[in-house]
Amino acid sequence: MSSPRLFDLRLPDLPLEHGGVVRSHHARGWWWGPEEDLPVLSARAQLLHRDALGAPHAVFRRESVIEPKPGGAALPPNVPTVLLVHALTGDARAGGERGWWAPLIGLGKPLDPSRVRLLCFNNLGSNYGSSGPLDEGWPRDASLTTLDQARALWLALDALGVESLHLAAGGSLGGMILLAMAALRPHAIERLLPLAATSFSTAWLIGFNHVQRQAIALDEKRGLEVARQLAMLTYRAEPGLEATQARTLAPKPGARGAYRVEGYLEHLGESLSARFEAAPYLALLDAMDSHDLVHQPPRLSMVRQRKALVVDIDTDVLYTPAQVSALATLLSEAGTTVERATLKSLHGHDAFLIEWEQLAPLVTRALSL
Amino acid sequence: MSSPRLFDLRLPDLPLEHGGVVRSHHARGWWWGPEEDLPVLSARAQLLHRDALGAPHAVFRRESVIEPKPGGAALPPNVPTVLLVHALTGDARAGGERGWWAPLIGLGKPLDPSRVRLLCFNNLGSNYGSSGPLDEGWPRDASLTTLDQARALWLALDALGVESLHLAAGGSLGGMILLAMAALRPHAIERLLPLAATSFSTAWLIGFNHVQRQAIALDEKRGLEVARQLAMLTYRAEPGLEATQARTLAPKPGARGAYRVEGYLEHLGESLSARFEAAPYLALLDAMDSHDLVHQPPRLSMVRQRKALVVDIDTDVLYTPAQVSALATLLSEAGTTVERATLKSLHGHDAFLIEWEQLAPLVTRALSL
Repeated sequence: MSSPRLFDLRLPDLPLEHGGVVRSHHARGWWWGPEEDLPVLSARAQLLHRDALGAPHAVFRRESVIEPKPGGAALPPNVPTVLLVHALTGDARAGGERGWWAPLIGLGKPLDPSRVRLLCFNNLGSNYGSSGPLDEGWPRDASLTTLDQARALWLALDALGVESLHLAAGGSLGGMILLAMAALRPHAIERLLPLAATSFSTAWLIGFNHVQRQAIALDEKRGLEVARQLAMLTYRAEPGLEATQARTLAPKPGARGAYRVEGYLEHLGESLSARFEAAPYLALLDAMDSHDLVHQPPRLSMVRQRKALVVDIDTDVLYTPAQVSALATLLSEAGTTVERATLKSLHGHDAFLIEWEQLAPLVTRALSL
Repeated sequence: MSSPRLFDLRLPDLPLEHGGVVRSHHARGWWWGPEEDLPVLSARAQLLHRDALGAPHAVFRRESVIEPKPGGAALPPNVPTVLLVHALTGDARAGGERGWWAPLIGLGKPLDPSRVRLLCFNNLGSNYGSSGPLDEGWPRDASLTTLDQARALWLALDALGVESLHLAAGGSLGGMILLAMAALRPHAIERLLPLAATSFSTAWLIGFNHVQRQAIALDEKRGLEVARQLAMLTYRAEPGLEATQARTLAPKPGARGAYRVEGYLEHLGESLSARFEAAPYLALLDAMDSHDLVHQPPRLSMVRQRKALVVDIDTDVLYTPAQVSALATLLSEAGTTVERATLKSLHGHDAFLIEWEQLAPLVTRALSL
């Protein structure tokens, strides 16, 4: 049985939707699948040392060693490929140690690397191994979009010789990016599994991102912490927060910063600023804001011949069930066979990273739509 | 027919719940009622010039001229008194020009000054005429509570000789303060009308206030604007924001700050920072966070002999319908006769300042519970 591997790919320069070109374009990838893939991976990409899989985020992003490896065969087409797309501050490690969907991935799990080829890439604009604002080749004043991120993923798949996807799955920004991938290549993905994602970013979402951006403008480091605090409140929901962080009497009456939720938020803010930089964070907010596959081309309404399981979260305040339903309707009207499901959770938007027992059958269902 | 008047009252020093004493304690009041009240008002308080009623907020708060006027008769007890309690950044002007509930107040309106005496006071800790952090008599390092604000209102009513209230009404923080008033004097309010208010502040609410406070800590003026932007997002709801501030294509593709909602939020932030100071804003956040009439005395469960109409808002993300229902249950179990109503609105928490057609019959109902 194989074990997951990380690799770096050199990719073609990427002109961005809103101007500028990403040069020295590269992507950090994560793979788990049949052993026969490995010769292709090592011919086309630079395999990272296995220890990188368990590295802390902060270290992980500095370990990249890119070696161009043109040529070699394509990954065997007889193995179904599943692409997993991570959310805002995630990285390519989808399964195994530090994997953001680890409980769903492995032998006997819904995403079983003995039966399918699992791939995930660090998203363009991030800081965990793929091209982003911290790199020299990144264009000045770039304003990233989900279409740029989707194009980068297609380039990465092209570089491995993967022409079509059995399934593309992801939550939140990951779901938005996979929808953009579908809009760009309407026939290349057989099954879509977007979770807590929408066809366009609402004023509500853009508003919260605006506040985050303004906080970072006040102070890059502390502002990033405050932005993350706000973001985490929107990723959670009132009942879940009350269940875990309910008020305690201040140990010293009247002392500020004494409520439990304040310590929780401070911890979350500090955790992010220890592993993420302001510039890539802002780039990823740009991408999120830009997301619109409804009012401008490429439109989701042009997508054909595809199946989708569209999942909302009942307590999600950021990507509301109504918005997710609108996405399902849009896909359905365009001719996609759409199934709908709802994650029931106290915890809001982040339920796609929490509710494993509900997620497992949904992922299994999506594989066989 | 009378017209609304503003007045200043000198009040007894007020020891705060969490330490410190408010000295030179004063309150800015607003009155509208029968003419026969005016001799009492002018004997006990300093009437402000009528022009102050229409003054912009920024000017309004600097016009205070306090003259102690001890003695005089009480306001005639045969006229029912209705106390209106304003929300976070409001002021005492409830009705008439610049009145926060103006559409509900006036001859032939639900709150008719020919039939009831209407009173409203600037809340303790604010900066529109009542004692607050900008005043010399304010204690250093004070941490304000809704109980302090409720005590200040009782002192103001005492100073006018008002012993009991026919109705106390208010939304959001105003609703929380009137609940605190009820907890402090369990028999002195006949009818309660809290709108979008709860018996204690949740982790969710405290979390959003924490983020606001951290933004202000980064920069007093710009941080206050950013805090207000965040607050306004929590006062609104996703569908209403989408209905009025939906994304437009950026005039220049990729230009930052080009989405309509960003301009809207910037305007709201600047509007607040032009009329409010950071210190009172922070004091009012402290009060909001402190609100807890469940886990510590005085408890709402001790309240007796009172009627209440408890109103939630279906799209309120800040004070959720579930939390408001819990308040109704608590009051009911304590022996209050409780009616429930829901404002249906696209606009979230602020619906208590927007949905006039739905509010009018609710206020009428509350008066005759």
